Parts: sequence; structure tokens; C-alpha cells
Amino acid sequence: MKILLVGASGTIGKTIDAELSKRHEIIRAGRNSGDIRVDISEATSIEQMYQQAGKVDAVVCAAGNAYFGPFDQIREEDWYIGIRSKMMGQINLVMLGRDYVQDGGSFTLTTGILAEDPIRQGAALSMVNGAVNAFVRAAAIELAKGQRINVVSSGMVEDAVEKYGPYFPGHYPIPMWKVVSGYVRSVEGAGTGQVIRIYE
Amino acid sequence: MKILLVGASGTIGKTIDAELSKRHEIIRAGRNSGDIRVDISEATSIEQMYQQAGKVDAVVCAAGNAYFGPFDQIREEDWYIGIRSKMMGQINLVMLGRDYVQDGGSFTLTTGILAEDPIRQGAALSMVNGAVNAFVRAAAIELAKGQRINVVSSGMVEDAVEKYGPYFPGHYPIPMWKVVSGYVRSVEGAGTGQVIRIYE
Repeated sequence: MKILLVGASGTIGKTIDAELSKRHEIIRAGRNSGDIRVDISEATSIEQMYQQAGKVDAVVCAAGNAYFGPFDQIREEDWYIGIRSKMMGQINLVMLGRDYVQDGGSFTLTTGILAEDPIRQGAALSMVNGAVNAFVRAAAIELAKGQRINVVSSGMVEDAVEKYGPYFPGHYPIPMWKVVSGYVRSVEGAGTGQVIRIYE
Repeated sequence: MKILLVGASGTIGKTIDAELSKRHEIIRAGRNSGDIRVDISEATSIEQMYQQAGKVDAVVCAAGNAYFGPFDQIREEDWYIGIRSKMMGQINLVMLGRDYVQDGGSFTLTTGILAEDPIRQGAALSMVNGAVNAFVRAAAIELAKGQRINVVSSGMVEDAVEKYGPYFPGHYPIPMWKVVSGYVRSVEGAGTGQVIRIYE
């Protein structure tokens, strides 16, 4: 398969790349590196990325951020950081990518455990993750041409423990190989509309 | 209790009003009617509503809309209708209302079954509902002063059958008294962080 991997140089993106590139052709996209530069918070940037990439069999997104900080300090514009990036960024990847993905191809997005199991300071991430999970379930029933869509929702990944561990009390690190298995299942499997939970 | 009911003249709002007004003082807010006029898609309008209402024991929101239409015709600005109204409108009701709700008071928001069980043309509603459900779970662990927050997620309510029935194949109408029981449970009960599902 020809796979467009958005966020290829990130913590999870690098590991997805290492696994999927064993048996697929990967087009790497990222904000500051990769074959194609893209800022998913801008629809025009996504359009340009697809024009450069051409037709692909799968799109995998491991990009997108949201505000992180104490609930009582979140201002309206802070919510919109995640709305424009991890939320509408990923939704626009699907809406604008449908004509570039082969019939029967797939989209795989990324959320995380905070959609269901919140932590302090994580409300904006929870909201964005909940929105994308629900979007994926809904998009799956209306996508045409046999296209599939899933989302991988992982717990605190082991490569993020040093940076984020203290914010996740009692969460144990999820091995990267398990997280990547979720993306493999979505891309190479046949499921659609699934929130693939990698929490244990 | 003194309860600020936003969306008091809507399908669900009217029934909430009829039940809660039996034993509480209701301040009714709405876009085109009520004691106070408010457009929840505008933060400044929400601020003005709270200044007029003053301190309350509970805020109940049965307002907010989102785009409804075929998936392949949803444009970026259509997603933002629901983002600004049912999603950020309800989130701003909480963020801007915390100082107006008494210690130990509560917020009750509204989503719906599409967060979990999508229908054709409903992707924007699914997304918004998923976002608000996740927001409520997250806000509950960081709200201060003993304030509580829940969301009532109902199926297709009986009063909407004529208008929306054909879009919900195989969904049977949920009696209004059951839907309203969810709001009563949130306002008069002690739970927090709950998605109160009224699907049967």
C-alpha cells in the first residue's frame, strides 16, 4: 500500500513509520520535516499536501495538539487551539482527503484515553478526543466508495512517561508496540467506525 | 432552588420547566423569549445573561444546535455552527458561569444518542455531542467549590418524532417524562461527571 503518514516524526508517528514501512510505501508529512510539509490546523495546507501526495491507499494521522493546563485558567481561545488542530485538523484530513484515497482505502486518526478517563488539566484534550471519536463513528456510516475510518485511542505511551508521567497518576505506560498494533489493525484490517482502545 | 434554564421554550426546555417549576424558582433564558435573552454562541451574551440572573443554585441548558445534512456536503464552516453553538456554547455556559453558581450548585448540559449511535446526516451533531460528553467528565474532576456537572443524553424524544422520525430508522420515541427525569436526577441528585443516558 501507499500510505500517507501525517505526523511522521512525532513520538507515535516514528514508531508507526518503523512498523508500516516494513511492508508499505510511506509518504511522510509533518509540520517541520518529512516528504511534505503540512499544518493540519489550516485547511489550505491540507489541500496542498494531498495535491502533492496524489492518490494513496491509506491516510494515518498521528498529529494534532490541544491546550493543556488548569481548568480554571482555560480561556475561550485556548479551547480553540485543539478545535483547530487535533479536532478540525483531523476532520479536515478526512473531508478533504476522500477524493485522494483509493476506493476501499482507509483513514486512521488518533485520540487518547482522556476522552473517557480524564486527568487534571486535560479538559481541552478530553473534549477534542471525545469529538473525534464520535466523528469517526458517524463518518464510518456515510463514507462512500468502501472507504473505512477508525481511530486509535491509547493510554499514556511509554515514550511519553518522562514528560507526562506525573500528570497521569496511576496510569502505567503502554508499550509502543501495542500502540502501533492499533494502527496496523486499522490500516491492514477490515474494520470501520471503531475506536481502537489500547489502554492495557 | 433558583434555577437558570437556558433554552426554556424549546421542545425539551418546556417540559423541564413544567417539572422543575413545581418545586423550584425558574429563571427562563432563551434566544427569542424568556426572562432573559441569550445567544449561547456568543460569550458576551452569556456574560450578560449571568449578570442579569445573578447567583443561582443550578444552571440547566437545553439549547444549542448543529449542522444536519449529508456527510459529503458538510463544509468546514458547517462544522463550526455546532462548535460555536451546542459545543462551545455549553462549555462557555460552564466556564463563565462558575462564579454565578452557588458553592455546591450544579450545571446540567444536553447532548444526545448520536454521540454513540450515529445516523445518516448527523455527523456534526455526533461530533458535538461527543465533545460535550467528554468535557463534562473532565470538568467534573476540576470544578471547585463542590460544584457538580452532568449531561443528559437522550434518544429521539417523542415530541420530535414528527419532525425527525424518518431520520432515525428503528429508533422508538423516548417519552418526555423519562427525558425530564434525567434533568431532575442531575439537579436534585448528588452525582457529578455523569452522562445520564435516556435511551430506552
